[in-house]
Amino acid sequence: MKINGKAYRTIWMADDGASVTIIDQTKLPHLFETVDMTTAQDAYRAIKDMLVRGAPLIGVTAAYGVALAMRADTSDAALQKTCEYLNTARPTAINLRWALDDMQASLMGVPASDRVDAAYTRAHKMADDDAEANRMIGVHGVELIRNIAAKKDGPINILTHCNAGWLATVDWGTATSPIYHAFNEGIDVHVWVDETRPRNQGGALTAFELGHHGVPHSVIVDNAGGHLMQHGLVDMCIVGTDRTTRTGDVCNKIGTYLKAVAAADNDIPFYVTLPGSTVDWTLDDGFDIPIEERDGEEVTHVWGETDDGRYERVRVVAKGSPARNYAFDVTPAKYVTSLVTERGVCDASLEGLSALYPEKAK
Amino acid sequence: MKINGKAYRTIWMADDGASVTIIDQTKLPHLFETVDMTTAQDAYRAIKDMLVRGAPLIGVTAAYGVALAMRADTSDAALQKTCEYLNTARPTAINLRWALDDMQASLMGVPASDRVDAAYTRAHKMADDDAEANRMIGVHGVELIRNIAAKKDGPINILTHCNAGWLATVDWGTATSPIYHAFNEGIDVHVWVDETRPRNQGGALTAFELGHHGVPHSVIVDNAGGHLMQHGLVDMCIVGTDRTTRTGDVCNKIGTYLKAVAAADNDIPFYVTLPGSTVDWTLDDGFDIPIEERDGEEVTHVWGETDDGRYERVRVVAKGSPARNYAFDVTPAKYVTSLVTERGVCDASLEGLSALYPEKAK
Repeated sequence: MKINGKAYRTIWMADDGASVTIIDQTKLPHLFETVDMTTAQDAYRAIKDMLVRGAPLIGVTAAYGVALAMRADTSDAALQKTCEYLNTARPTAINLRWALDDMQASLMGVPASDRVDAAYTRAHKMADDDAEANRMIGVHGVELIRNIAAKKDGPINILTHCNAGWLATVDWGTATSPIYHAFNEGIDVHVWVDETRPRNQGGALTAFELGHHGVPHSVIVDNAGGHLMQHGLVDMCIVGTDRTTRTGDVCNKIGTYLKAVAAADNDIPFYVTLPGSTVDWTLDDGFDIPIEERDGEEVTHVWGETDDGRYERVRVVAKGSPARNYAFDVTPAKYVTSLVTERGVCDASLEGLSALYPEKAK
Repeated sequence: MKINGKAYRTIWMADDGASVTIIDQTKLPHLFETVDMTTAQDAYRAIKDMLVRGAPLIGVTAAYGVALAMRADTSDAALQKTCEYLNTARPTAINLRWALDDMQASLMGVPASDRVDAAYTRAHKMADDDAEANRMIGVHGVELIRNIAAKKDGPINILTHCNAGWLATVDWGTATSPIYHAFNEGIDVHVWVDETRPRNQGGALTAFELGHHGVPHSVIVDNAGGHLMQHGLVDMCIVGTDRTTRTGDVCNKIGTYLKAVAAADNDIPFYVTLPGSTVDWTLDDGFDIPIEERDGEEVTHVWGETDDGRYERVRVVAKGSPARNYAFDVTPAKYVTSLVTERGVCDASLEGLSALYPEKAK
């Protein structure tokens, strides 16, 4: 997608043919700065310090970290040690473990002398596969937008929550992919961007990427979506998910459930976009998904840029008042109109998912 | 209610027997500072610059502003001019107009020589009446909390939105009055305080006043309430209202509707507290209430205190991204379990309200 008129992915090979470049997302939306990674340590710090975030992008960054490590030492011991090391950068991210297991397994079968090239090739493929899966989510999802556009004059108003955008993946994003596809083919879309407290990924990242790609949008506080729905100002909701059970219960950023239940109350379709890898085939009940509770300081304090360009952290909550910070919630499948995957659109149910992923349903 | 262990109202007579003291609420929650008003101009600025806020408190402040004006000039012309002047401080606040009309009408029937005393007496009564109405809301509302406490071990978890607290009134608050009554009689209560973006009245003001009175509470982002309800962590919701139709539709701070619909989805009672003066007897449909749209900068920028005690405004939204800022929403009566008024608890319906306010229902 575009930043300042130029097409980007979130991670790419530097001109020297060895280093790997990322966008420092900790500076967004205020500054656009890239960072060249030349060692596995660089990749570790990029993940740990959240220069990159979003499960798919974390996995791909780790894969490139292995490739960078191979340039220094292609031994079995180095390979294993690097994978163990990178996995500790953010131990809770499922894609990180998956990507490192994949790299280790595939490189162990390759002679040490060929491992540098093989590692880059494997990391490139992982990046391309992610971009392609997200592109296909858009190809399938844009049909849902077209269907509404065929019946309505004026802009199609789409509400989204958090950042399930291209910045969280290699390209296209999940929730944003149908939106970018619609915009690119000339459909008149307007996106309501939920601010997404406490970390403000909507106001900071989703607004940034939509703005740079030229997609009309407005930032709203998380409180506003229900009012907009009541007044016919939302045609559809599209969100991402961190984990979805095989029965279609959707775990996503805190606040998603409130929008889903309000959408149902106002007969507005509520779509969830995801690659098949996000489905947890071991779970039947979304309430069995553990919900991370994070530091209350994310609630009591806010970071931002002053009018004269300084970065400051300010307290917004009364001193001495404790805060609780649940990071995710679960939207029961009954409130999900459809799931939109790289293989197509299906019901949020075991039947729906099994038809698209028969090899997993067994 | 208490601040630093001492009982306060939001407005009171200064020791000189003429000046009127208020809390500068623009400094809360970071600083507790009082301001002495000695002229009508002081009262005007206090309202306009939001040193005082909350419809009941604005009305009482204006009434004292008339008393202060009478000290300088008790003529009919001065009385009328002062009321016109003060009414322009915040022309949309219904209580401001009501309080000034009351002062003007009552003082016009008093000889000019007696108007200073009469004005203070009338303003005192208005303040006392507000405190008493709110106290009675608590007397009736605490029964709802007692009923839950009788059936449950452990703390009664009450979720509230925005600040319908004593700081918005003369004393007790509306939504907080049942909570303070429960706390004062020893019921184990814990309040989930919605941050209430964009102006953060929950995290700033409700948390401040609960904290100073010693009421256990936790601040949460507005996104979190649904998750808490799904997990049995909310026993009841109590909110205030800016205007309620005679049919029981509730206009309140943006985001109230999302909590109400989630409460219904989880079979959690949702109570709305209000003095009878908040009922609009001319309206049958809440969606006929005009919804104020405020400056988008309230969404894109946040004020707060740095770790070293400076006050800074920081941008939290991507530059160039527009924001929309709807200030209120409407919760349909069907999602309101009961209304809690100074005259008792009733259904959110024309029948319910008419039984409590037969003189208005005619």
